[in-house]
Order: sequence, then C-alpha cells, then structure tokens
Amino acid sequence: MGDNKEFVKEITNIEDDIAKWYTDIVKKADLADYTDTKGCIAIKPYGYAIWENIQKYMDGLFKKAGVENVYFPVLIPESLLQKEKDHVEGFAPEVAWVTQGGGEELEERLCIRPTSETMFSNLYSKWLSSWRDLPMVYNQWCNVLRWEKETRPFLRSREFLWQEGHTIHATAEEAKQRTIQMLEIYERVIEDLLAIPVVKGEKTPSEKFAGAESTYTVETMMHDGRALQSGTSHYFGQNFTKPFEIKFQNKEGKEEYAYQTSWGVSTRLIGGVIMAHGDNRGLKLPPRVAPIQAVIIPIAAHKEGVTEKAQEIYNNLLEKYRVKLDLRDSYSTGYKFNDWEMRGVPVRIEMGPRDIENGVCILVRRDTLEKKEVKLENLSEELGKLLEDIQANMFAECKKRLEEKTTIATNLEQFTKSMNEHQGFIKAMWCGDEACEDKIKELTGAKSRCIPFNQEHISDTCVCCGKKADKMVIWGRQY
Amino acid sequence: MGDNKEFVKEITNIEDDIAKWYTDIVKKADLADYTDTKGCIAIKPYGYAIWENIQKYMDGLFKKAGVENVYFPVLIPESLLQKEKDHVEGFAPEVAWVTQGGGEELEERLCIRPTSETMFSNLYSKWLSSWRDLPMVYNQWCNVLRWEKETRPFLRSREFLWQEGHTIHATAEEAKQRTIQMLEIYERVIEDLLAIPVVKGEKTPSEKFAGAESTYTVETMMHDGRALQSGTSHYFGQNFTKPFEIKFQNKEGKEEYAYQTSWGVSTRLIGGVIMAHGDNRGLKLPPRVAPIQAVIIPIAAHKEGVTEKAQEIYNNLLEKYRVKLDLRDSYSTGYKFNDWEMRGVPVRIEMGPRDIENGVCILVRRDTLEKKEVKLENLSEELGKLLEDIQANMFAECKKRLEEKTTIATNLEQFTKSMNEHQGFIKAMWCGDEACEDKIKELTGAKSRCIPFNQEHISDTCVCCGKKADKMVIWGRQY
Repeated sequence: MGDNKEFVKEITNIEDDIAKWYTDIVKKADLADYTDTKGCIAIKPYGYAIWENIQKYMDGLFKKAGVENVYFPVLIPESLLQKEKDHVEGFAPEVAWVTQGGGEELEERLCIRPTSETMFSNLYSKWLSSWRDLPMVYNQWCNVLRWEKETRPFLRSREFLWQEGHTIHATAEEAKQRTIQMLEIYERVIEDLLAIPVVKGEKTPSEKFAGAESTYTVETMMHDGRALQSGTSHYFGQNFTKPFEIKFQNKEGKEEYAYQTSWGVSTRLIGGVIMAHGDNRGLKLPPRVAPIQAVIIPIAAHKEGVTEKAQEIYNNLLEKYRVKLDLRDSYSTGYKFNDWEMRGVPVRIEMGPRDIENGVCILVRRDTLEKKEVKLENLSEELGKLLEDIQANMFAECKKRLEEKTTIATNLEQFTKSMNEHQGFIKAMWCGDEACEDKIKELTGAKSRCIPFNQEHISDTCVCCGKKADKMVIWGRQY
Repeated sequence: MGDNKEFVKEITNIEDDIAKWYTDIVKKADLADYTDTKGCIAIKPYGYAIWENIQKYMDGLFKKAGVENVYFPVLIPESLLQKEKDHVEGFAPEVAWVTQGGGEELEERLCIRPTSETMFSNLYSKWLSSWRDLPMVYNQWCNVLRWEKETRPFLRSREFLWQEGHTIHATAEEAKQRTIQMLEIYERVIEDLLAIPVVKGEKTPSEKFAGAESTYTVETMMHDGRALQSGTSHYFGQNFTKPFEIKFQNKEGKEEYAYQTSWGVSTRLIGGVIMAHGDNRGLKLPPRVAPIQAVIIPIAAHKEGVTEKAQEIYNNLLEKYRVKLDLRDSYSTGYKFNDWEMRGVPVRIEMGPRDIENGVCILVRRDTLEKKEVKLENLSEELGKLLEDIQANMFAECKKRLEEKTTIATNLEQFTKSMNEHQGFIKAMWCGDEACEDKIKELTGAKSRCIPFNQEHISDTCVCCGKKADKMVIWGRQY
C-alpha cells in the first residue's frame, strides 16, 4: 500500500489550501487544463462528460417546459449592445472586441457575446407582430466570453459554456411565472442530479443583473462554507422591450410592449460539484452525473478466467450503467484503486480469482469507503441500489453542512465573529440600504447572497445600521 | 382551394430561380433568419431541431467509434495559428481578430477559431508523453467563424456550427484508418438519416485542406445538379505533429512524432437537406431527421368530439413519434395544409367528424402527395410503415437524380456541352496536372469534386490535355 499513499499525497490537503486542492483535482482528475489562451481552459473528456450529463438532463426538463432551442450569432454589433443603458454599463468593461475581419478593419466593432439579451431582443423585435406569436420561449446552448481579470477553472473562466434562455410574453404575470419556473428547474437539476442543496431567493438591487427588474438565484454552499451563485433567472419587465421596440398587437388590436425574462447556468456547475463534494482523496461524483458510475478492477487478472469473467460482467452492466473495465496491465492494482478514487467514481467493483470461484465480488463506495460483498447474480440490482444510496447520502452530507454552517446574527459583532470563525451562511435582517451591504462587505468580506423565498423573522432591526428591517437576507463570502 | 394556391405562390418557382427559392424556404419555413451581424444567421427552433437530430444520431455513432467529446477555447493566439505554414496561409485571410479585451489593446491578436488544428495540436503536445496515451480521439461540437465574402444561409455562413474531430495516433496506418472510418460515419449519417446518396473519394491536391497530406470527402448532388461538399476527413501525417512537437516514447523507448487526422461536418448539412429534397411546395424533410414527423389536422374541429379524438390520438402517437397537433383556430384548414406542406412535414393526418364516426383517418404523404385511408386502430403501425417508406423513397429519388445527372466525357467538347446542358456530375479521366483543373474550371465552372473510391476506366487519356491519365475524377459545379 506504499504505492497507495504516495499517490494520494500528490493532492494538496483541502484544509491547508483549498484553492490549490481545487486546481490539483481539476488537473489530476483530467477534468480540464490551462491553455495558451489566457484565462481560457480546455475541458477534457472526463470534464466534458459531466457537462453532457447535465445538458441532457436539463434539456429534457426544458423541453417538457415548452422551451425551444435556437442558435444566434456569437458576434454582437456595438450599436446593439448599447441599446439598453444599464446593460451596456454592466458588460462593456468585460467584453472582447473583434475589430478586424477578412484582412480589413471593421467599420463597427463586434463584441463576442458576454450574454445575448441584446441579440435576442433585436431579433424578437423583428419577429413579433401579434399576440398569436407569444410567448416565445427560446434557449441556446453556447459559449460566452467575459474578460475576467482573475480566473479559476470552471468557476470563473474568460470563456465558458452555458445555456441562456430568453423569453417574451404578453403579460408581466406570465413572464414572472416563467422566471420562477426556470429557477425551479435549476433547483431540481442541482439538487436531484448534482446532489447539492440550494437556497432559492431574490438578489438585492445592488446584486441584480445589469438591466433586470429583478434577479432570482439558486445559491449553494461549498466545502469551506463559501457560497457559489449556481444559476440565475431574471425578470426584465419592459426594460429591453421598450428600447428594442418589441411590440405586438394585443387581442383588442392595440399595440403593447412585451415582457421579457432570461435565465442561465454554466459549466461553473462542474466547479460546484468538485467544491461541494470533493475530499482529500480527490473528486467525489454523484452517481447520476458521474461519467463512470462504477469501475470494475479485476485482481490478479493474469490468472485463468479472471479477465474473461470481468469482461462478461462488464458487458452485462453496460446495458444499465455507465461502467468501465480497467484492464491496464501497466499499472498496479493499488494505483488503479487510488486513480479511480481520485477521479471520483462512485463505486469500485473488485473481483479476484477466489471471489469469482465463490460467485461474489466486492463493492466499495467512494463516499464512505465502505465495502460490501455481493453475489454476482445480484450484482446489477445491488449496484443500482447502492448508486441511489450514494446519491442520497451525498445530498444529505451537503445538506448537513449547509445547516451546520448557517448561523444567525442580530448585530455586526455577532456577524463578524461568526463569519471569521466558521465561514458559512449568515441569516440576518436588512433594512434595504445598499450602504449596509457595502459596510458588511468591507468588514467581513461577505455579500448578500439573496433574500430567500423562505423568510424567517430573526429580529426587528437591520444587522448593520439598527434601523427597522423586515427582510431576512442570507449573507456569505463567495467564489 | 383558392387559399391553397395563393399560399404556395409566395415561394419562388424552383426552376425560375433556385437561389431565391432557397432563401424563400429558409425564411418561410422558419428555419433561420438574417441578423444585424453581417453574414451570420439566427437559427430558429425549427431549423435548430434538425441540427439536434443530426447531432444526436451522429454523436451516438461517434461514441460507438470511441470518440470522446471535449471543449477547447474559441480564441487562438496568432502565434499558434502561424506554426504550420500552409495552414496559416489557407486560413489567415478569412479570420476575425480580437484586438481589444477588458478595455485594453491586447499585446497579441487572438483569432476566433476558423478550425482548431492549431489549438488541438498545441494541447496534444503538452499531454502526450508515452505510447500508452495513444490514440487520443477527441471531438468538439462548437461554433467557428470564417470571414466569407458571399454568404448564403446554412450553405456558407460566416459563423456556423459544426463538429471537429482531431485525433493523434502512434502509426500512420492507424491514423489513415481513422480518417476513412470517420468518412464512413459521415456517409452513414447523410445516406441513412438525411436520405441523400453520397460519392466518396479523395480530393485532388489543389482541393486539399490547408496543411493536410490527403483530404477525403463525401459529395452530394443538389436539386439542380450542383455539388455540395458535405463532409471532409483529413489525414495530416506528421505535418502538424512536427512543428508542434507532438512526440511520444514508443514501446522501444524511442521518441517519435505522432500521426494526426481531423474531420468535420457542419450546419451546412441543413442546407443540403433543403436543396436535395425541396420542391415547389417548399421543404421536404426525411422522416428520420424531421422535427415533426406527422401533423394531425382535425377538420371541422368545432364539431362535437373531434378535438377530443384528435387529442387522444395525438397522445397515443407521441410515445413513438415526433408528432404535432394543430388546433390553431385562427387559421383555415387549407392554410394549415399548405403551411405544413411548406414546412416539409412527412405525413399529414386528417380527420373530420365522419372519419371519426367511421373509425378512420386520412394519411397524406408529403413526398408523393398520395392519400391513404387508415383505420384508427392501425394508425400507429401504419404511420411507422409509411414513414419508413417515405424515407426510402426520398433516398431513391435522390439516387435516381444522381444517376441521371452523372454523365461521361472523354474530351473537352463533350464535357462543356454536358455541363452546360444538364449541369450535374461528369466522370472523366485526369492526368494529375493542376493546369487541367484550372482550365476546366475556367471553361465550364466545374471543379474536381473528388477522385472517387469506386474508380472506372473511362478512357486512357486526360479529358483536358489528352495526355496519359489513369485517374477518374468526378467534376461538378458547386455550392
């Protein structure tokens, strides 16, 4: 087992330096790598397969919710970007500009989309004429680019992959419903597929998306208690439909401006999975999103019949599960155990000559490291149960942490102490003044995460200024 | 039926002006629209759904062939693009350059990928060390940009969606096999899914991809006899692995350069489907790729029980087919018939009160316009058979045209006459001299499509210069 220890050492201890632990895992688990394009990563097969599983599940929910996929241009003319004042102020500083094309200087700069509200709005204005055309509920899976100064693989990358939904509706009410409906789909994806509990709520005005009337968010808690904004859904009212003239004839024959929403999640979710579930052995993947749900490692594979039996079992399991058979003869069994543990495969299936003789194999779960002997004839069924159990247990573990690391504060002293001592979420009342948010940020590094839908009455006064307050806000440091 | 005629008139006659007919269909069938980003289109839900069906089918074949998906940066530093001489000469004139980002001028220009050989090569050089790492068989589904001067929706757009596969191998033989294997997957997708027969072959040296040792292609014939290059697969030998230093230790412990391939098909295939199958009634979609395989149109839907029965039938069919129920009450039945015909839906299911009373409905096929009465109890089975029949018939129709419009020429006079008379493919011998290709192009507008794998001996001499020739080439005008 010397081999074993040696191998695990390569990953920085999570308690020593979580930032380094994180990048170690990204690289060593073969999820992604840095590239010569500054701030942009290359997503490798193992990382991309996680994204494909997220896409597949979420796109299925989208389609059931009446969402239609489209693809619009990656380049947005500067004049379009500038049509909505708040929006351009928010995004212009972090866009990349194309100024030359086909060997010539362009007359007008084109930005690479940082998000596509302006492109969608412009097209909607051309397509919409009557109430019969509404709603339009379009989404695109695409790349976007934001010129971030500090980057971190998946969590904050200059280029990232995401889906961006953009919808227009005849009434404010319908648009608001859609905003919440999509937020609930994000909740379902993150909780059911990624096994991470979310806190749902509304962003404070200072944390809203540039140009939105209101922004809703699903916030998750990472291993060290920090928050990750994991998905957002925006209600725009008529903020874009007016400058872009997105108008329709209503049933009474009168012209009206439509109401608009947008919503998105990105490859940042992969970073969330690493940070929420990983440990000192490496990545820990929830079975439903894991590219490989179980790896079969034959022991003493050179002995007669072992490889053949492992192959037979692999073929059987392949129909129901995403399974891998590790027959590499240039690596020791110990190396393989550690390698797949580090890569976060939920279940390891070990089988040696004696196991095969006895008609059994050993299942080792990644989350608790518990071992269990299982009869080969029951393997498929037992594996299915075990995977569901791991999925549920991983969610419960995260939920427990979320609860343990969520505290209450009624004054700034409590707030600061709690944040410095165990860094997590703090529930506290807020008066609605941005100055209080700024002060808290300065003192503690924590920002308002959201005004959660599930409100509680903590006290009557603002945690910061002591004035009357009726909103409970969740606060936390963020990734 | 006045309504009927009126409606169909809106599409330009295909024999009068196929270019205008094409753009009419793209717009009126709601496949795509122009945007304010010059040369770039917005792919609308109906067009994008075709692409999703192509992706799903092709990605399944890729995965069975051991291809792994990845995602690499959209921006390529200029220094990387310049590492392979032929490649940069081929692509530099048609790239778009990002020169500003985050409010500052960049020190080095970044191009938006026109294709990603350089990005993949650079990363492969970092990742490859031993023969154990080989092969790497990676693919990405992404957007690319080429600054075309003349554009046409789907067929030649500045930005388009595609898949680009890039692989490295230990031996030339293995790389060559992969090149052909992927070409055969393209053949299968285009013939089986899109119902368009292909001609497979090798490009002449002058038509090769910039930087390739050899380029293989699947060529298809459109409605007017013109060719569409529908997918290409390239063998690079060590052309990129040497400048990029993609090296590995072989089993004998010696350092070697790897062998490389790349292959791609794009949203151009959607243009191919329109152009190969469409007619004066509009789009005609092969059932296997059609977003809607059958549309149910209740007649006299206001009569008791009609809508309910249609809804019931719709719900039953939905399990097996991509089906649509048209209950719009603001459009006449005649309008609906034409609308769905124009949108190319393979089968229309009509049912009125009397049909329902008799337990029947009418199936109308889009390809031949034939009608057939079917018992409701047999509907699901009959629809399945009909869809397969339409798929086969559409392929047979295209195949017939390909055969009829492929002629033989043994001298330039014959060649010119045939090309001007019925524009199609011409089989003729070629000496291997680029000057002959240039001359034929100048005289007839036709280029060499490929040196087909299925060679025939047409004559002993080059169709152009009369010198000795042993290669049969397929020639044609192109889109």
